[in-house]
Amino acid sequence: MALIVQKYGGTSVADIEKIQSVAERIIKTYTEGNDIVVIVSAMAGETDKLVRLANEAASGGDPERGEYDSLISSGELVASSLLAIVLNSKGYDAVSLQGHQIRIITDDNYRSARILKIETASIQRELQKKRIVVVAGFQGVNEKNRITTLGRGGSDTSAVAIAAAIKAEYCEIFTDVDGVYTADPNVYHKARKLKKISYDEMLGLAGAGAKVLHQRSVELAKIYDVPVYVRSSFNDDKGTLVTKEDKDMEKEVVSGVTYDKDQAKVTVIHVEDKPGVAAKIFSPLSNQNIVIDMIIQNASVEGYTDLTFTVSKKDIKQVQSILAKIEGEIGAERIDYNPDISKVSIVGVGMKSHSGVATKMFSSLAEEGINILMISTSEIKISCAIEEKYTELAVRVLHDAFGLEIEN
Amino acid sequence: MALIVQKYGGTSVADIEKIQSVAERIIKTYTEGNDIVVIVSAMAGETDKLVRLANEAASGGDPERGEYDSLISSGELVASSLLAIVLNSKGYDAVSLQGHQIRIITDDNYRSARILKIETASIQRELQKKRIVVVAGFQGVNEKNRITTLGRGGSDTSAVAIAAAIKAEYCEIFTDVDGVYTADPNVYHKARKLKKISYDEMLGLAGAGAKVLHQRSVELAKIYDVPVYVRSSFNDDKGTLVTKEDKDMEKEVVSGVTYDKDQAKVTVIHVEDKPGVAAKIFSPLSNQNIVIDMIIQNASVEGYTDLTFTVSKKDIKQVQSILAKIEGEIGAERIDYNPDISKVSIVGVGMKSHSGVATKMFSSLAEEGINILMISTSEIKISCAIEEKYTELAVRVLHDAFGLEIEN
Repeated sequence: MALIVQKYGGTSVADIEKIQSVAERIIKTYTEGNDIVVIVSAMAGETDKLVRLANEAASGGDPERGEYDSLISSGELVASSLLAIVLNSKGYDAVSLQGHQIRIITDDNYRSARILKIETASIQRELQKKRIVVVAGFQGVNEKNRITTLGRGGSDTSAVAIAAAIKAEYCEIFTDVDGVYTADPNVYHKARKLKKISYDEMLGLAGAGAKVLHQRSVELAKIYDVPVYVRSSFNDDKGTLVTKEDKDMEKEVVSGVTYDKDQAKVTVIHVEDKPGVAAKIFSPLSNQNIVIDMIIQNASVEGYTDLTFTVSKKDIKQVQSILAKIEGEIGAERIDYNPDISKVSIVGVGMKSHSGVATKMFSSLAEEGINILMISTSEIKISCAIEEKYTELAVRVLHDAFGLEIEN
Repeated sequence: MALIVQKYGGTSVADIEKIQSVAERIIKTYTEGNDIVVIVSAMAGETDKLVRLANEAASGGDPERGEYDSLISSGELVASSLLAIVLNSKGYDAVSLQGHQIRIITDDNYRSARILKIETASIQRELQKKRIVVVAGFQGVNEKNRITTLGRGGSDTSAVAIAAAIKAEYCEIFTDVDGVYTADPNVYHKARKLKKISYDEMLGLAGAGAKVLHQRSVELAKIYDVPVYVRSSFNDDKGTLVTKEDKDMEKEVVSGVTYDKDQAKVTVIHVEDKPGVAAKIFSPLSNQNIVIDMIIQNASVEGYTDLTFTVSKKDIKQVQSILAKIEGEIGAERIDYNPDISKVSIVGVGMKSHSGVATKMFSSLAEEGINILMISTSEIKISCAIEEKYTELAVRVLHDAFGLEIEN
């Protein structure tokens, strides 16, 4: 007897048959005596279809941002209504609620709005009637009552935010993988499913390219201390619990290895090492919403330095055209572009208290002849940019080096 | 310089290319200095697709009515956002508004809700900003803030209701035909487009099977005296004006001939002619929402009579199973069912003051050997049930008999 939030992703509700399986799972939880709020994504492929329509409608330009959000929110309207129809037809009283009906209030930042407030009254009212509440994920409304969306993967964030708002016991994220692994199982068959992982590690993995949970959902789960289970909707495995750090976890020096192939490297060679040069380079890029990931500045030699950074592969052409315009102004000798880059990272809360982790990472890669192009570190993560072709090899090497195959 | 409401049907917004043509037409009206509110239907085929999904989700049962309406309202959400994206991308400030954003308040009668009230503040606010307002047709919300829909063709009603609420100068209904004809041009090439028709005649035509306008929209137009132009979105023809009766119109004895093939005949033979028998037959039918169209009771012979009525073809099986249960109770000799029936009607406000119209109709049909199975009349309409195979012939015969080819 608990209040439980479940979220089902697009592949879990891809067609009516799959929605019926999802309904059976919900009914099982409900008939065990739990109150249940379900968040659904759009049926797999629907959001992509809507995005294509929007781009076509804008004739190659940028679709008006508010209308774009209204349009693509329709996928979740459809999925949530269909799930409610299925539940009702199976004899269970269910009601769908859209973002505007609940009043999930967000900021004005269309396409990747942040939730500011959730009015829980409508959900509470339906739960008191012993109804199964089905919420359209991914969407909210801003103060002007325009529909907003939370960014791709945003239904995870809807789920965790609602779980926090209604003080659910836990939030289950049902997806097409059955948990969080020590590495991508498609890359290394020895990857092991983790029973538990801390919020911080999960954030580290997400930032390092693992696509299991929407980053913002993990941030919210951490802030509001919402236990999150990552589970498969296609089996009964309990999945991975994402939760706050505990003593057990500290034993794990490294919890996982992850990679991100969406990296391209830019090197600005031989610029004067003086205040303002970095700003001159990065301001025009951030003005165009280009996200810089790793940054390194070489040690200065005779007042000159090289500046290297990575961006998303899709942005590389735009970066080239922006920097071409200011190349003279920044006085660089030349600018090199390398789109064939990836990033491998190891993540683990235990790193904080263990020395030698970085050394082991670098030497393991070196033994296989993998050259490290850039390094960046945080308290619980070390990332190395490498040549893209070595990505899978690097993941396997690091997985073996840190003995991730065997549970501690 | 006027306030104009335009409504575009599903075939007019069937794909992005067609939406772009619609946008050009809207822009033309807007740049002539008019304020404009546009109502759109779902893209052609989309509502049917959603209905199929709903039925599939209900596993052959009846989809929960509120969820069904939420689901099928998504088609208009998509179309209205896409049109607003197109208008914005062409440099015109446009904003889409859903039923819940405007607050088009309806009753609780899901699937064919009636509009109770329209809050015009949001529309007025956007018009004051000189924006083109694009409204999702077909939908509203009830007092509980659940999405409702107005029935197939309901976007016409959205358009006229909004035109009435904001006191628009007129309402243009753009569709795939370029006006109201004296008969279905697909049935008779001599059919002539009417320049004008009265609300009552239009109601007569709609009730007689003509599918040009949603019946409820004409009722509203009549109540609030909203001039309605029925026009094609594919050419510049001015179409047909539906308006209040004027002196010009009274000259037309008959304005049009129409037909409805969706008729099936039921004859209850030799029942006692005493109070309560008709109620016994019709109550169980209306309880199952079966609509009875024409009804005739023969003159009583020795205390017994025959009762004949028509229903929609799709309901005939259900009628059979309902009447089979009460056949003993009503004491009929037998019940005959004939699904191969149609109804032809002539409509015209001039009938009121002209005698001989009915006689001419009956004799014209008789001359061609078309047997009249049932007759029903109103002030401005005469309908005859005939064998379905004679439908087209009957339309042509009546069109000729009343000289509809030539404008009076």
